[in-house]
Parts: sequence; C-alpha cells; structure tokens
Amino acid sequence: MAFIVFEGLDGAGKSSLIQLLANDLTRSSMQHIITREPGGTALGEELRTILLRTDGEAPVARAELLLYQAIRAQHVENKIKPALKMGSWVICDRYTASSIAFQAGGRGISENDIKSLNDFSTDHLQPQLFVLLDLPVEESLKRIQKRVDGGQNKDRFEQEEKDFHERIRTSYLKQSKEDANLWLVLDARKSSEDMYKELKSKLIEKKWLKS
Amino acid sequence: MAFIVFEGLDGAGKSSLIQLLANDLTRSSMQHIITREPGGTALGEELRTILLRTDGEAPVARAELLLYQAIRAQHVENKIKPALKMGSWVICDRYTASSIAFQAGGRGISENDIKSLNDFSTDHLQPQLFVLLDLPVEESLKRIQKRVDGGQNKDRFEQEEKDFHERIRTSYLKQSKEDANLWLVLDARKSSEDMYKELKSKLIEKKWLKS
Repeated sequence: MAFIVFEGLDGAGKSSLIQLLANDLTRSSMQHIITREPGGTALGEELRTILLRTDGEAPVARAELLLYQAIRAQHVENKIKPALKMGSWVICDRYTASSIAFQAGGRGISENDIKSLNDFSTDHLQPQLFVLLDLPVEESLKRIQKRVDGGQNKDRFEQEEKDFHERIRTSYLKQSKEDANLWLVLDARKSSEDMYKELKSKLIEKKWLKS
Repeated sequence: MAFIVFEGLDGAGKSSLIQLLANDLTRSSMQHIITREPGGTALGEELRTILLRTDGEAPVARAELLLYQAIRAQHVENKIKPALKMGSWVICDRYTASSIAFQAGGRGISENDIKSLNDFSTDHLQPQLFVLLDLPVEESLKRIQKRVDGGQNKDRFEQEEKDFHERIRTSYLKQSKEDANLWLVLDARKSSEDMYKELKSKLIEKKWLKS
C-alpha cells in the first residue's frame, strides 16, 4: 500500500495515468481508492463547485487558499486516513503541492504561510510520493483549448493568463527539486503508457509493487 | 468612526444591542455598516449556510475552523476594509474571538493555531473594541429554547451540549481578561437599553461618540 499524489498543469494527463495505475492495482487485487482535490468528500465536492465556478462572487486569494485547506482537512480526516488505516492504497489527484503551486506561485501568497496551513489541514500527513506530470504551458493551454472546443467550459483557474500557469509550472519544478526523494518527475509530452512504465519502475524500486 | 465587534453566546442579545447603536449613529448622521460572521459577503453567506446547517456531511473540527477563516478573509477584504477606507463605522456580529471561543474552547483546537489563522485571514486587522455580552449558559439555553418554541430551528452549534457552551463562555471571559483594554464586558441579563447605556459611555470615553 502507498499514498501517491499526482500533480501537474491541467491537461497534463493525470486522469489517464491514474487510470493505468488503478487498472494495474485491480489486476493485482490490491485495494485502492482514487480521490481528488479539491473534492474527495461530499462536503469537499460541494465546495469544489464554489471554488471553480466562474459566476458568483469570486473568492479573494486568501479566502481561496483557506477554502482549499478546509476541503483538505475534511478529505484527510474523513477519507484518506480511514483508507490508509484499512491498508488501502490512496491515489490522489492534487494535494498540498497544488496549494503551493497555485496560491504561492500563482497568487503570490507567502510559501511559508501555505506550508503552515498545509501542515494544519493535513495534520502533517504527507504522501509517500508526488508524481509531477511536467508539461510546457503552451502544450497545457492547447490541450485545455481542445476540451473547450469539445464543449467543456473553462474553470476559474483555466481562465487565467499564460503567465499564471508559467508560475505554477515553475513552482512545481522547484518543489520537486527541493525534495527530490519525494518526487518523480515525468515528461507529460510522452504517452500515458510511456509515463506509466516509468512510474511502475519507481513503484517496484520502492517495493510497493512486484515486478 | 470605529470598528466594533459584538461577541457572546447565542441569545445574549447582540442583535438588539447592535440595533440600538445603529439607531444612535443614524441619528448622529454617522456612516456605518452592520455586518456579521460567518457571512458578510455573498460568498460568505453561502458558506454560512453550509457551516450552520444540520443536514449534509458535517465539517470536521479543522475543516470547520478553516471554513470560518475563508469566510473571514473574504469579509475583511471585500467588505470591512473598503468600509473603513470610506470612513464608515463597522459594526460586526462575531469576529476572530468567536473562532477562539468556539474552535479552541468548544472543539479543543490549539489556541495558538487559531490565533495564527486569525492573523492570516484578517491580514492582522483587529477591531478597536470587542463588546462581550456575557450570559450564564443556562440563560442562553433558555433563550434559544424560546426561539425554538417560536418555530425557529436550532443550528449545528445550538444543538451542542451544555458543556460545549460552558467552554465557549469560559474562553470569552478569558480573552476579555487577557486583553482588558480591547474588551468591554456587559452583563447580558440586563435589558438592551441598560447595556446600551454602558456601551455608549465607553464610546464617549473613547471619543468615538459625542456625549
């Protein structure tokens, strides 16, 4: 069992990679849950809608950060901790690193303030591995545009300027370098299958999966 | 102009006292807003409903605290600061002291953690005066029950045990002693008119009101 978090710009391919891992775990009869932030609980999903919508009063930067943290506290307590206690893998789409990338990198809030908040909301629960799907911003924006052309609306973050996304990518890369043991960085221009090969090697190296 | 916060157990009579002050300010043509927490903005009022309702997934203690703080950050930035900048009085029903009373006193979260969060969400904006309407818990519960008999439902906090409310009262009294210059403690068994006389003397003493 392991607690693994997937991070990256929108369009980087987190969902597909998560699905490949989940399929592999299912084949090996290993218990796992797939969850996400913002969201993960009934209350969290309700607050997610409020955070991502493009109508209504938009939260100011500090309120946005605190809403994410409220969602996270609920998620850790009511979903992640109980799953880990049962010996289940937890596969999570975004976690604490997103708050640093989006609210420090993107919104300019102090990284130390965010780290303290992350410690508080998670009760110091860290994942065992962060997987960063690193993608050039141009490519991320192209992929978001493709979804829009396919009929999906942009959320409040996807509507931000290119520079906002550049700062997020920079923050992710910085985080992955500062704590290299905790991070696996994948080139998200590659196919999901190629990324999954690299991820699987890492999981085998960690002895969480058998070869 | 002044930024004044009213605190106390439910049923203590905050609304009536606030109304007497507002009437007086109106008579003196002094610009003022009446606002409240949780709430105060469109987003805050929406989140208030989520916090106080008795159905749906209840927030865990840390999530509850963070939701209050998100509401507060929005409130300070979008309502309180702009009003003060315009030279308006701000009269607020509950603020940072409620988080300490309810989440430290009531829920047992560390007071230091809450103080840090209060500093962050308010951007260090303190009121100039806290007015505590101090009421014995038995009397507060009686008054809440009267409202229920009158057809009003109890919110999630009003449904708590007597002991929870005792800890809140104790925390309020402790806070008012620790920072006596910032607090005016009124005996909420008195009539609103009698309480207002004491409050008005204090406001005149502070030179915020003329006698």
